[in-house]
Amino acid sequence: MSGRVARVTEVIAGSPISFDEAVKIAFERANKTLRNITGMRIVEQTVMCEAGSVQEYRVRAEVIFVLE
Amino acid sequence: MSGRVARVTEVIAGSPISFDEAVKIAFERANKTLRNITGMRIVEQTVMCEAGSVQEYRVRAEVIFVLE
Amino acid sequence: MSGRVARVTEVIAGSPISFDEAVKIAFERANKTLRNITGMRIVEQTVMCEAGSVQEYRVRAEVIFVLE
Amino acid sequence: MSGRVARVTEVIAGSPISFDEAVKIAFERANKTLRNITGMRIVEQTVMCEAGSVQEYRVRAEVIFVLE
Amino acid sequence: MSGRVARVTEVIAGSPISFDEAVKIAFERANKTLRNITGMRIVEQTVMCEAGSVQEYRVRAEVIFVLE
Amino acid sequence: MSGRVARVTEVIAGSPISFDEAVKIAFERANKTLRNITGMRIVEQTVMCEAGSVQEYRVRAEVIFVLE
Amino acid sequence: MSGRVARVTEVIAGSPISFDEAVKIAFERANKTLRNITGMRIVEQTVMCEAGSVQEYRVRAEVIFVLE
Amino acid sequence: MSGRVARVTEVIAGSPISFDEAVKIAFERANKTLRNITGMRIVEQTVMCEAGSVQEYRVRAEVIFVLE
Amino acid sequence: MSGRVARVTEVIAGSPISFDEAVKIAFERANKTLRNITGMRIVEQTVMCEAGSVQEYRVRAEVIFVLE
Amino acid sequence: MSGRVARVTEVIAGSPISFDEAVKIAFERANKTLRNITGMRIVEQTVMCEAGSVQEYRVRAEVIFVLE
Amino acid sequence: MSGRVARVTEVIAGSPISFDEAVKIAFERANKTLRNITGMRIVEQTVMCEAGSVQEYRVRAEVIFVLE
Amino acid sequence: MSGRVARVTEVIAGSPISFDEAVKIAFERANKTLRNITGMRIVEQTVMCEAGSVQEYRVRAEVIFVLE
Repeated sequence: MSGRVARVTEVIAGSPISFDEAVKIAFERANKTLRNITGMRIVEQTVMCEAGSVQEYRVRAEVIFVLE
Repeated sequence: MSGRVARVTEVIAGSPISFDEAVKIAFERANKTLRNITGMRIVEQTVMCEAGSVQEYRVRAEVIFVLE
Repeated sequence: MSGRVARVTEVIAGSPISFDEAVKIAFERANKTLRNITGMRIVEQTVMCEAGSVQEYRVRAEVIFVLE
Repeated sequence: MSGRVARVTEVIAGSPISFDEAVKIAFERANKTLRNITGMRIVEQTVMCEAGSVQEYRVRAEVIFVLE
Repeated sequence: MSGRVARVTEVIAGSPISFDEAVKIAFERANKTLRNITGMRIVEQTVMCEAGSVQEYRVRAEVIFVLE
Repeated sequence: MSGRVARVTEVIAGSPISFDEAVKIAFERANKTLRNITGMRIVEQTVMCEAGSVQEYRVRAEVIFVLE
Repeated sequence: MSGRVARVTEVIAGSPISFDEAVKIAFERANKTLRNITGMRIVEQTVMCEAGSVQEYRVRAEVIFVLE
Repeated sequence: MSGRVARVTEVIAGSPISFDEAVKIAFERANKTLRNITGMRIVEQTVMCEAGSVQEYRVRAEVIFVLE
Repeated sequence: MSGRVARVTEVIAGSPISFDEAVKIAFERANKTLRNITGMRIVEQTVMCEAGSVQEYRVRAEVIFVLE
Repeated sequence: MSGRVARVTEVIAGSPISFDEAVKIAFERANKTLRNITGMRIVEQTVMCEAGSVQEYRVRAEVIFVLE
Repeated sequence: MSGRVARVTEVIAGSPISFDEAVKIAFERANKTLRNITGMRIVEQTVMCEAGSVQEYRVRAEVIFVLE
Repeated sequence: MSGRVARVTEVIAGSPISFDEAVKIAFERANKTLRNITGMRIVEQTVMCEAGSVQEYRVRAEVIFVLE
């Protein structure tokens, strides 16, 4: 990464299916706006519930991308 | 949530299959005793092993439910 | 506290006015159910927003009460 | 939030009056640039002093907003 | 623990003698009300003082017990 | 601050009214003994309760002051 | 565990498929070298990305094994 | 504590015997210089070793004392 | 800072020479895009190695800049 | 320590008697395998319970030893 | 350190040159007032910027000194 | 790293000159015993002092190396 600088931003994404899918949704949305994403770090996993059932698996993730 | 107050409690649940299933087991057990669960936050993920194989995926989770 | 044992539980309360009022609401609700509350510790302060304005000041607090 | 993704950013705002006013100033400034703010989390409260008196109440807050 | 779910609660207990005795007092009180306690984790150790001498050794502990 | 060195100390102050007043009381007491206080950081907010009502709002704060 | 002593070590493993598979890979590799593994604790979950897609799910885990 | 302000300072003390004795030594030394100590909080416990045996049990503790 | 609001963002920069140079590279890159940077806080220092030698000193830093 | 490098490893040990004894057991076991242990730091204290009584006092400790 | 007790205090120092020089300035200032300093621990590294250039490297450090 | 597993270990190294040199000493010693080191993370920076001068700059670092 010498000579290059990366930025870190944070996103929250949810899926009705699983944490894994929430991670993919987070990546896909971030990838639309940001070029050169090199990694993500999961910083929180929560579950939203309503009326006695799980409605959403939610992840909060740092997104790292290299600046041009 | 104005006018309402929620409580936070903590549970630990295990599954022989996956962390995802352990989360579901935690929710289902909590949902038997507590009404109005609005969410859970995963605070620890561990794996129990024995005799050279994984026996259990275990999650520790905060459970948030609204008081009546 | 020698000879006595206290329990710690956690509540979340919200007010449309301020964090201070949210603390009072948390205490009053907890005090309805729990006897001998000796203190609270604020562990998180959040603000809920909607349609371009603050809707609620929310506090998460540990509640300490002495067991009889 | 299924299907939607939120971003988290961080601001610091100050008020000569109180922490509560600093929270409002933070929200109002963020709300000028960011659409769909759903919440804020206070992560630090500091006080700036000079010449023997408090000059400013300062809050650092995460701002969460839904991406379109 | 597969198929079983545990709960985590928190207690604070004090002894005029030592931290070790405070741990025992915490366990004994918790054990009166809760069945199937499997473990405790010490999360804080404090000492209360008065009039130039130590009055109480105090521990704060998480208590884990299996739900039936 | 080049050439200057600051010290950090910690105080705890309480008010029967509000956290804001407790911050002021902390500052005023520190300001009696320490010259050149440049800032404070709130590190804990607790509430003391007795006989079913809040008795005191208490803050713990780091105090930063420049050495001469 | 009385009379026995355990050691804690840390590993990082990756899978192109999922975090769950990365946990299994971590366990299997550790199990080749270490006898009597009793558990693992997930301490970090990251995702490596390249050319606009997720390349690897990576977990960092503590491994606990009993010494003979 | 209304109207009163406390200070927090930190000490490290060691004993060849036990952590408990190290806590007492910390308190006794602090009590020589500081009036009105109301409590201590243990923030670290370490053991110093040499030539294959434990030489010292060491505690690091916050000391809280009320200002006059 | 009264009346002004600052934003906090995060960057990662690397240098083949030293952590100090990495901090400078981080500042210079951030300063190209952001006006009114008032400070940075180092949040992580890592070293990348390859083929038996240190290749890069890397810092992760929060960057604070005042909004206009 | 100039010219010397130390390593840090982690052990977990239990005693049916007390935390102090668990620390000694941890040291003695580590001292069988590792030369030049200079210190230990207690990072967790837990208690294992069964059938309504405390079965084991368990400590988790970092062990520091100088490499030759 | 048996029989001796140490105190921990905290200082903040800045240098226009580097973090290393800031550490030296912190030590030298502390050493003027405190006898028997045995060590320091760096707890924060920040950089102050103005008008598009770095003005100051600042360290916050705990200072440990043995009481007589 | 797919298909490969890395281990994390921790070392402490000191230099009479600077933190940078201590990092190099840590790497060189680790590199003698461990193959395929890919990185290090600095987790603590301390300074040892004696007789009114700095004697040693000390770093504690995690070392990551790929298993074969």
